[in-house]
Amino acid sequence: MRADGRAPDALRPLTFETGLNVHAEGSCLVRMGRTHVWVTATVEESVPRWRRDSGQGWVTAEYRMLPRSTTTRNRRDGMPPGGRVAEIQRLVGRSLRAAVDYAALGERQVLIDCDVLQADGGTRTASINGGFVALALALQGLVDAGKLDRLPLVHGVAAVSVALQPGGPVLDPDYSEDAGAEVDLNLVMTGGGQVVEVQGCAEGSPIAQATLTDMVALGALGIAQVARAQAAALPGLALHFPMGGGHAG
Amino acid sequence: MRADGRAPDALRPLTFETGLNVHAEGSCLVRMGRTHVWVTATVEESVPRWRRDSGQGWVTAEYRMLPRSTTTRNRRDGMPPGGRVAEIQRLVGRSLRAAVDYAALGERQVLIDCDVLQADGGTRTASINGGFVALALALQGLVDAGKLDRLPLVHGVAAVSVALQPGGPVLDPDYSEDAGAEVDLNLVMTGGGQVVEVQGCAEGSPIAQATLTDMVALGALGIAQVARAQAAALPGLALHFPMGGGHAG
Amino acid sequence: MRADGRAPDALRPLTFETGLNVHAEGSCLVRMGRTHVWVTATVEESVPRWRRDSGQGWVTAEYRMLPRSTTTRNRRDGMPPGGRVAEIQRLVGRSLRAAVDYAALGERQVLIDCDVLQADGGTRTASINGGFVALALALQGLVDAGKLDRLPLVHGVAAVSVALQPGGPVLDPDYSEDAGAEVDLNLVMTGGGQVVEVQGCAEGSPIAQATLTDMVALGALGIAQVARAQAAALPGLALHFPMGGGHAG
Amino acid sequence: MRADGRAPDALRPLTFETGLNVHAEGSCLVRMGRTHVWVTATVEESVPRWRRDSGQGWVTAEYRMLPRSTTTRNRRDGMPPGGRVAEIQRLVGRSLRAAVDYAALGERQVLIDCDVLQADGGTRTASINGGFVALALALQGLVDAGKLDRLPLVHGVAAVSVALQPGGPVLDPDYSEDAGAEVDLNLVMTGGGQVVEVQGCAEGSPIAQATLTDMVALGALGIAQVARAQAAALPGLALHFPMGGGHAG
Amino acid sequence: MRADGRAPDALRPLTFETGLNVHAEGSCLVRMGRTHVWVTATVEESVPRWRRDSGQGWVTAEYRMLPRSTTTRNRRDGMPPGGRVAEIQRLVGRSLRAAVDYAALGERQVLIDCDVLQADGGTRTASINGGFVALALALQGLVDAGKLDRLPLVHGVAAVSVALQPGGPVLDPDYSEDAGAEVDLNLVMTGGGQVVEVQGCAEGSPIAQATLTDMVALGALGIAQVARAQAAALPGLALHFPMGGGHAG
Amino acid sequence: MRADGRAPDALRPLTFETGLNVHAEGSCLVRMGRTHVWVTATVEESVPRWRRDSGQGWVTAEYRMLPRSTTTRNRRDGMPPGGRVAEIQRLVGRSLRAAVDYAALGERQVLIDCDVLQADGGTRTASINGGFVALALALQGLVDAGKLDRLPLVHGVAAVSVALQPGGPVLDPDYSEDAGAEVDLNLVMTGGGQVVEVQGCAEGSPIAQATLTDMVALGALGIAQVARAQAAALPGLALHFPMGGGHAG
Repeated sequence: MRADGRAPDALRPLTFETGLNVHAEGSCLVRMGRTHVWVTATVEESVPRWRRDSGQGWVTAEYRMLPRSTTTRNRRDGMPPGGRVAEIQRLVGRSLRAAVDYAALGERQVLIDCDVLQADGGTRTASINGGFVALALALQGLVDAGKLDRLPLVHGVAAVSVALQPGGPVLDPDYSEDAGAEVDLNLVMTGGGQVVEVQGCAEGSPIAQATLTDMVALGALGIAQVARAQAAALPGLALHFPMGGGHAG
Repeated sequence: MRADGRAPDALRPLTFETGLNVHAEGSCLVRMGRTHVWVTATVEESVPRWRRDSGQGWVTAEYRMLPRSTTTRNRRDGMPPGGRVAEIQRLVGRSLRAAVDYAALGERQVLIDCDVLQADGGTRTASINGGFVALALALQGLVDAGKLDRLPLVHGVAAVSVALQPGGPVLDPDYSEDAGAEVDLNLVMTGGGQVVEVQGCAEGSPIAQATLTDMVALGALGIAQVARAQAAALPGLALHFPMGGGHAG
Repeated sequence: MRADGRAPDALRPLTFETGLNVHAEGSCLVRMGRTHVWVTATVEESVPRWRRDSGQGWVTAEYRMLPRSTTTRNRRDGMPPGGRVAEIQRLVGRSLRAAVDYAALGERQVLIDCDVLQADGGTRTASINGGFVALALALQGLVDAGKLDRLPLVHGVAAVSVALQPGGPVLDPDYSEDAGAEVDLNLVMTGGGQVVEVQGCAEGSPIAQATLTDMVALGALGIAQVARAQAAALPGLALHFPMGGGHAG
Repeated sequence: MRADGRAPDALRPLTFETGLNVHAEGSCLVRMGRTHVWVTATVEESVPRWRRDSGQGWVTAEYRMLPRSTTTRNRRDGMPPGGRVAEIQRLVGRSLRAAVDYAALGERQVLIDCDVLQADGGTRTASINGGFVALALALQGLVDAGKLDRLPLVHGVAAVSVALQPGGPVLDPDYSEDAGAEVDLNLVMTGGGQVVEVQGCAEGSPIAQATLTDMVALGALGIAQVARAQAAALPGLALHFPMGGGHAG
Repeated sequence: MRADGRAPDALRPLTFETGLNVHAEGSCLVRMGRTHVWVTATVEESVPRWRRDSGQGWVTAEYRMLPRSTTTRNRRDGMPPGGRVAEIQRLVGRSLRAAVDYAALGERQVLIDCDVLQADGGTRTASINGGFVALALALQGLVDAGKLDRLPLVHGVAAVSVALQPGGPVLDPDYSEDAGAEVDLNLVMTGGGQVVEVQGCAEGSPIAQATLTDMVALGALGIAQVARAQAAALPGLALHFPMGGGHAG
Repeated sequence: MRADGRAPDALRPLTFETGLNVHAEGSCLVRMGRTHVWVTATVEESVPRWRRDSGQGWVTAEYRMLPRSTTTRNRRDGMPPGGRVAEIQRLVGRSLRAAVDYAALGERQVLIDCDVLQADGGTRTASINGGFVALALALQGLVDAGKLDRLPLVHGVAAVSVALQPGGPVLDPDYSEDAGAEVDLNLVMTGGGQVVEVQGCAEGSPIAQATLTDMVALGALGIAQVARAQAAALPGLALHFPMGGGHAG
């Protein structure tokens, strides 16, 4: 039994509150339990220098934790940030790029800003999940404005983490579960259940290959749940691409 | 008539939503119209090096705008920030320090973090107003925990800006009013109506001394309204110090 | 009675030594008592990127204290500087811009560098006062060189500070008076007595609005004295714009 | 058929040249094909501040590419480095820490410096492989010097990457194979075949879970080959812990 | 014939104005022709960490050019500065350290700040020459205050540069002479004519060894002149150590 | 007698291993005794902005020490580096530029990267010596590719240091000899024996002018030996310009 009474394959309560920022082309406050991330998507009608004259677009992300998003206050990161923050924002950017049809987007850039208001484990997966919602809203805005004929998305993208506890793997651990885990696995998958990115680290003891396979399978169950919640937050968009098997029923 | 129909001496809708952050000793989401600032107060049981062994506490503040808090996205500031950001966070810190009885606080530091989620003019005054609420909540927590006998506050502190328009001075301008103003005056006052800080800049044409006096008087009317809203957001604290004449009635 | 025997409304000895730098378009060593600032004005035949093709000029300022300008040595500031230094150089730039007719200046930039050789209070007001002299000399050089038809100045600009002592407000405090003051007010005004900028901070106790008004009035007396000294240092320029009442006699 | 004629499950030529640096406690020039990394291990008789008085040691790593290690010259990274470099050096450090018995090491720190002299794909896996050799040499030095009773290692640690080509997965891709791959998977495992870290990224199209499982299995074959080469480069150490199946014969 | 009519072995007019800074333990405005450097010496009753408990003192220097010390304005250097500025301040520090008896100084540090107000060639030699005067004044202050029994100086130290012109070597070149020179040689010597530091760079064509010897000899003539001027600026100190042969007659 | 048995005028064993880097236009591992420097030369078909449209090329250098190139580990330098590193890389660049015919090179830039793998004194002279070899190889590559008609070199350039020991001057000191020296002199000369750069510093006691002359003469003997070794490492290039007396026989 988990501390908050969840089943091993249950997510924390997951909500997406959209449209909170009047300036941004897309925005979303994503809450996974007590982890809250403020996400905005900005559309720029230009691409980075190395991408010019390619006819293709680009998506990138920045991630920060507000100083008091954690139990003790952290200093603000410098610019550019080092270590963990750089690693996470690179992951968020890569994951969201997997969702996009660059040629259909054209020479535009979408910048996703993920600012963690409150952290309780899983800030990178929450950022990807909310990032996808903000991205989709911004792209829909381009369609609504007549700048694009169709939504330049090829997949829904969602993320979840899986922790290996003494009693076996559990889905979407909060901070206390994560801190005590032998292994922490972050999974990014399409709504259709294919793997976009996998990052696993056996902080305690190394694990057997079969255990890794089991953890991926448990994560896929969580991804399907996230994809349904994303689809519900994007009602007008659900028909245009496969968010996940769950909402087809 | 102002663009949003307000009277010259009317504030924008002002709300304080408290307790949104489970980690921080005090927290507050302050909204002045479309300007929204996320404020946390962190209590540390130590003071900066130069303050040690003085028996006295300290209060300081940091201020940042999230990249997409404005109509176009801004790059994240470095650390330490230059120019305007440094100036504002120094103002916020100085203003809040005027509220505090350092000796009663003891050798503790309170750090106020103000992160602007959405900007529409008046982010520095909103930060001071929300900062005072978060600070008071954090200090009340120290009393509740038995670490202090009484609230180490000597004043309520509130802030408002006044813009000189062609038709005369107006209170609490939004961004479009501010951008077109001849003069921008920021006022920080106690709930009792005394001046803590005044910063006025005639960006267009210089003004007569009498006009400055009039603008300060209009600002004082706004301060009283802010102080009443702060008192309402801090119900258990209202009796301990003069928040402003308004709530005595 | 003040420590140095001055009357409350008396400035410290104020001198402007011009033309000390053979390279700069304008230069000035300003001394207010023991506060000495080395000021140069540089004319560049271009404007910042955001100002291009506007037909208008720009004025900006940098301010630094040499390491041993104070009683103990300070480390050199980084680039860009944080906090107090950033705040002061922004104030100097804004104040001097109020003097200039941008359209008459054309697409040129004047950079004012203020380096404090020795500090004893009032370095920001000395920088503004000397900065105006260096600026005027540089602009006169453009007229003399036939690049401008007339001096692109609309006002003289001068600055002074006022401190609230237990015995009442005093003009142009030195460091020891400033350190002991309840309130420190910096005033920038035109030679004609209109307010350009006001910055007041009640470091000790908040003050009544009427006290603020009195301090502004005392400051205006000081501004008139500074404006006369500036006019004397710029003999050929005094007729072109109102420096202050003094040179009308 | 691969461009260099290798079988899909064949590594590039892998060599470890040890003892090249007279100053370092451990050192190694590792070559995987045309990827060459200069690795040193430094033993410090202290640990980072947060680790003091724990009785436990620490291992950390830094990674850089020399400017002309690649086909075009790169600028030197700042300090601290951002993005990709930060991510890689965190991975190297985590991977090597999995090899170490902190309590047996005692309050000492080993710093692994990996400087890429020449790059042709797989610099992170080469750094881990060479890093383990340099680490083991440095630890053996502590044993030889009588500072430790036994080698404080619990596993051998090795790394390899697997790329998904149109014709199926291949082991240890060089740069040209890596650049054209659909998916790039980095695996860190113990000599005994257990998973320490997995990082996979589907840069092109997402993949099925079963494909991921196949790629991990192929990687495990490569890990065993690396572990044998490490054991051969550490002849005196091979008996003390399981480097891999190879040395069991 | 040189452009300003000087003989090849003549210095520019050289003056030391002392005591201009009321805060510094030693100070000096040195002028070599149109090159003007503001120098202060600060005494700190502590030494850098690596020097503690050695019983010995330290001397170090910082050097900067004010932005408009040159014909076109330079940006302010960052902190720490790179390239040329770092090189010069290291030279100034090393040169002045050669003058000092560390054991007699005791565990104190003297920091020499050299800020170039106006540059016309030879700023590094002017900084050394003025730096020695400020250093000697600061050390004399320690003697006068009873903190030291005697002046902890073993040599006078002076510097001069020599340029190789088409017509032969010339002493103390100004900027225009320096810019056209084949070779630029900077010499630091004791008042007694011994070499402390030599830095020569054949920017144009390499030179014969005999030419180098001739240039050093010409420089020694200039050093003697500088040493006499330093001795004259330090009247009370001239008897304590050999400033140069000139004042012995 | 020197610690390693060398005669005062003998170099340490000096070798150049060329062509180790498959990417660089020129490369060289230079070893002077236990000092080992990895050098690459990169040719870019453009010049810095200030050099454009001049028809002339440019050569510049960067120098770093790997963290464990020394007996204790050093932190990696920031970017840009301060102090000693900046000084050395400026020296290396200046020295190599003396070798080049800019007009013959045309608007191209050669960047020399010197990374010290292991240090035992003389890293700057080794960098210049190896830098010349890598530069010559890169330039020969331009000739071989038909981009240049002839090698754009006017001199061979070599460097050596001389230390003044109690028993007299010695050539090419290692670290222990250098650390105990009274004076350290770095000499850069052409193969034909003319002086390009001289840098001498009397860290202990100042020296007579005649001693300096003697040290330069001893250095010239070492330069001739280095030039012969460079010529041997560049067999195809030896006829094109005077490397030194040695290859004339």
